[in-house]
This record gives sequence, C-alpha cells and structure tokens, in this order.
Amino acid sequence: MVVKRLQIIPVEVIVRNLAAGGMAKKLGLKEGTPLSKPVVEYCLKSDALSDPMINDDHIEVLELATKEEMKIIKDTALKINEVLKIFFRERELNLMDFKLEFGKFNGKVILGDEISPDTCRLWDIKTGERLDKDRFRRDLGSVEESYQEVLKRVTGMIN
Amino acid sequence: MVVKRLQIIPVEVIVRNLAAGGMAKKLGLKEGTPLSKPVVEYCLKSDALSDPMINDDHIEVLELATKEEMKIIKDTALKINEVLKIFFRERELNLMDFKLEFGKFNGKVILGDEISPDTCRLWDIKTGERLDKDRFRRDLGSVEESYQEVLKRVTGMIN
Repeated sequence: MVVKRLQIIPVEVIVRNLAAGGMAKKLGLKEGTPLSKPVVEYCLKSDALSDPMINDDHIEVLELATKEEMKIIKDTALKINEVLKIFFRERELNLMDFKLEFGKFNGKVILGDEISPDTCRLWDIKTGERLDKDRFRRDLGSVEESYQEVLKRVTGMIN
Repeated sequence: MVVKRLQIIPVEVIVRNLAAGGMAKKLGLKEGTPLSKPVVEYCLKSDALSDPMINDDHIEVLELATKEEMKIIKDTALKINEVLKIFFRERELNLMDFKLEFGKFNGKVILGDEISPDTCRLWDIKTGERLDKDRFRRDLGSVEESYQEVLKRVTGMIN
C-alpha cells in the first residue's frame, strides 16, 4: 500500500440513496424515505462556517475545483455508490448515505478518504436498526456492538 | 396586459453577481465581493422549513420540476440577469443579486414574478449605498427615499 500526500479539495461529497440525517431534516422528509435516484450534495469544508452546503457555481467562483474536476468527482462518487450499495445490500445493510473527499495528486483527481461506519449511514435492511455513526451521535448506545456487527457482516462474506 | 394563473414551481431562483446577504454570510465573504461569473442558487419555497437551499438532484427527487424545466429556468434566469445588469449599470446601480420565481402555464415554463427593489439587491455603483430591501430588513432608514431614488433613475432614463 502506498500512502500519497494529496492536495485536498475542500469539498465534502455526500451521496444519498434514502433520506436521513441533515437532508431529511432540511427537507422535512421522514428518515428512511427512499429517493428515486441517488442525490449528490456538496459542502464546503470549513469548521468556522459549519460546512455549509454549496453548489457547482459556488465551487467554481470560490475556485475550489474546476468544472472538469467536479464532473470527475460526481461521476466517481456515483460509481462508488453503485458498488457500495450492492456490497452492503448483500450483507443485509441499506447504504443510506456516505461522505467522500477527494484530492489532487500530480494534477489528477483521486479519492482521499476512508469508507467506514463513521462516514456511511448503514441501516439493517430488515429491522431498520442504525449500525453507524448515529449510534454515538444520537446517543443510542451499543456503539461498539454495532460496529462489530458491521465488521462481522463485511468480513464474514469476504472470507 | 394579460394576467395568467400559473402553477407555481416551488423553487426560488436567486442569481448573484456580487456576494451579499445570505451567500456572503454562509461562505464567509465580504459583502460586495465580485464573483467571477453569475452564481445561481435554488431554494425550496417553504416557510415551515425556512426556504432551505437545494440543488438539482433535490429538485428532481422531490419532483418539483423536471431536468428539462430546470435547464429552461436556469438559462432564462441568466439571460434576464444579463439584461438587468446592463439596465441597472446604465442607471449607476450594481445589481448584486435578485430572486425569480417560475411557473407553468399550459405545460410551458414561464416567469411568474415581479422585479423590484423588494426582489433585487441594488447598490449605488459609486458610493456602494444600498437602495433596496436591506434598508428595511436591516433597519437602515430612508426606505422610501431609496425606493424613490431607484424609481427616479429607472424612469428618468426611460422617458
């Protein structure tokens, strides 16, 4: 494994398959509402500004990334979503949404992020139980057990 | 003049030429910062949800408008901006930003809104004085005088 130091693009990319978290609240949707197609959102990475949602025009005028780079980023995020959605569905988990970050290395856009229950929302496909970051964010308890359950399902199918 | 009852599309369309108001605050920009190209933003028209900013994907999954309708809306908003920007510049006013609403009539997308100092931000091009809704929104006084000044400049050039 080679670790590369990226020039991080300060945009959080969120892909959503079902409404949950911030989107559900903002748009007045019940958490768990299926979306007819994946929704991609961008947020400016800025603690001082509380990571505000931005759009392609903001990204362009703030010179965070070029139009061409954003096309690569959106296409890549949607491809990753298709792979992950199936991967988790086979493990009886609904991939509600997840966050990605990208960076540039030698001028090329590449993915620069982990994929884990800290960056994905995962709900048990049958019971709707939350097995992700919301367990501690919302103080639901059984944080470690939930992460272990995800690990078991993920590694159990791979081995 | 014919008044048509539109089926309003519940999306506020905001076009910005210089950062001001909500965008400046959200992105930590100084009000009056020029933008390298016009920025278009969409908000869901919902008092209950405080008109949250949305993007094209949200508009599609919420079925507020089709992709084709949104293309017409964005193109039209940018064309209106080009006309208004020049119109106001000739009257020594900077068109900072403005809001539009669209509707459908017999299946066709048409503009359904007024254009006034209530829906536009207008700053005097030389002094930067605000001659718009921010006079009362921000309690700056001289509301009537400012609106009269805009009226004078607008009608003075037309007559």
